[in-house]
Amino acid sequence: MALLYLSSPERAAVWRPIFAREMPEMAFVAGEAAVEDPAAIRYLAAWTLPPDVFLRYPGVELVVSVGAGVDQLDLPAIPAHVAVARTVTPSIGAMMRDYTVLGVLAMHRELPYYLARQREAVWKGRPVVLAGRRRVGVMGLGELGRACIEALRGFGFPLAGWSRSARRIPGVETFSGKDGLAPFLARTDILVCLLPLTEETSGILDAGLFAALPEGACLVHAGRGRQLDHAALLAALDTGQLGGAFLDVTEPEPLPAGHPFWTHPKIVLTPHVATVTDFEEGALSAVETLRGHREGGAIRGLVDRSRGY
Amino acid sequence: MALLYLSSPERAAVWRPIFAREMPEMAFVAGEAAVEDPAAIRYLAAWTLPPDVFLRYPGVELVVSVGAGVDQLDLPAIPAHVAVARTVTPSIGAMMRDYTVLGVLAMHRELPYYLARQREAVWKGRPVVLAGRRRVGVMGLGELGRACIEALRGFGFPLAGWSRSARRIPGVETFSGKDGLAPFLARTDILVCLLPLTEETSGILDAGLFAALPEGACLVHAGRGRQLDHAALLAALDTGQLGGAFLDVTEPEPLPAGHPFWTHPKIVLTPHVATVTDFEEGALSAVETLRGHREGGAIRGLVDRSRGY
Repeated sequence: MALLYLSSPERAAVWRPIFAREMPEMAFVAGEAAVEDPAAIRYLAAWTLPPDVFLRYPGVELVVSVGAGVDQLDLPAIPAHVAVARTVTPSIGAMMRDYTVLGVLAMHRELPYYLARQREAVWKGRPVVLAGRRRVGVMGLGELGRACIEALRGFGFPLAGWSRSARRIPGVETFSGKDGLAPFLARTDILVCLLPLTEETSGILDAGLFAALPEGACLVHAGRGRQLDHAALLAALDTGQLGGAFLDVTEPEPLPAGHPFWTHPKIVLTPHVATVTDFEEGALSAVETLRGHREGGAIRGLVDRSRGY
Repeated sequence: MALLYLSSPERAAVWRPIFAREMPEMAFVAGEAAVEDPAAIRYLAAWTLPPDVFLRYPGVELVVSVGAGVDQLDLPAIPAHVAVARTVTPSIGAMMRDYTVLGVLAMHRELPYYLARQREAVWKGRPVVLAGRRRVGVMGLGELGRACIEALRGFGFPLAGWSRSARRIPGVETFSGKDGLAPFLARTDILVCLLPLTEETSGILDAGLFAALPEGACLVHAGRGRQLDHAALLAALDTGQLGGAFLDVTEPEPLPAGHPFWTHPKIVLTPHVATVTDFEEGALSAVETLRGHREGGAIRGLVDRSRGY
């Protein structure tokens, strides 16, 4: 019984000894060139999959993404009987919490305005708005969205959340589904996007959504690049409908040189660094996932393929 | 009995009706030109005092600063029998908390590095450090320092505090006095300065202090401009001894055009906006201060003139 590993050598150097220690009965095969018996491959660990991989290894029962996302996998191309799991690393929540609170506070305290004044060497303040008057709304109420909300509580921002299906979070006004979107947006001064990428969320941050926010609202986007309509964002910033944006993801990545996001005075841009998957935590998560699958228990990080996340 | 008010007309427009409502027996005299009976002046409200003011109004018993600071007042020039109080506004703590957490998270997540990459249109990430490995140290453990510490707790930063005299804060390693400074600095990766300006703290952020921090440490400075040695900060940033600085105060203010802080790639600079004194809250605070003084009760915001704050 073997795991076929199809990712970077740097990650393999961390994963291999952890699998040897935690799951000695499982052969750790790094790269297709190392496969001796294709029929022995029961598990795949990869970020993206090569073409026809399931034809070459028909015994595969489960694919584990080496990262937190699975949207980079072509899910419809994976046979229906194959389970898909993502890597669940405890530190992802803490990293996303730190990043999104930074983004929210940067928008709350008008950092793009002050960065622009610094570039001009102009000492000019604006009135300070208290957090109690700045309504924050989080899209996506999974593990990451909830970690973000918990960290924002202490500041006194009025908080709301929006998700595909209804969720309840004490002390937070929650909205769900298509019908809940407009009222959620109408009460949101700083919008945080932490949605997974699915067919439904692709392009969701568009002109219509921006128009439904109060004038001067700000965006913190740490979901996926394909959720954001770049042209609509630029237009909304330029008319003043949006006051600023703090972005970690774009489509494509890396963002091409010459793209207007690089130089826009109301945009702070980071290169998809809100979270990274720690190699050691990832290997331990994959071990748990495989163990659950083999022993018939709960499968850590199992993806609901009908939802796509 | 009268209060002589010596500050801006905008603030007077808010203070006058509040004093009329809350303390109708006190005449509110705005500006020296409006004084009819110099002997009736018992109180002064001002940011700075004109020369010889106590010779003209020998009956003054108390000076109330219209802001949170009193370091702009020439305390030794105020007769010893005159009490000095500062304005205590509840929202100052919340404003400072938001600003300092923004500064700490910006340093923690290497915002100056990413702003520099954005200017160069370079998509290049760095490894993410977890908050548990980033030791934050707060200098100044009064109301503002403690509000900052409380807000930082939720992120998991190992926290320490330093103050002139010993303080205990649950879950926080505290240091005090000259002897406590070196061990406090040696364990601090992100240093937050919220000290009041006194003779002892003037110039405290100097080359020796920066050298006592771990290499690559960062500074968040929202104390007073005169506490910071500009040349020492620039030197420490340029050698890499310091990794970045988030500054709200300078000496002088406004910072002159052409000063290297405006363009330094490791400095984020805001124009003394961490906190502002809300006029209405300030007027209510001054009413409380005068009431305490007249009735012989506790005097809100009373300054210990031997300490200078």
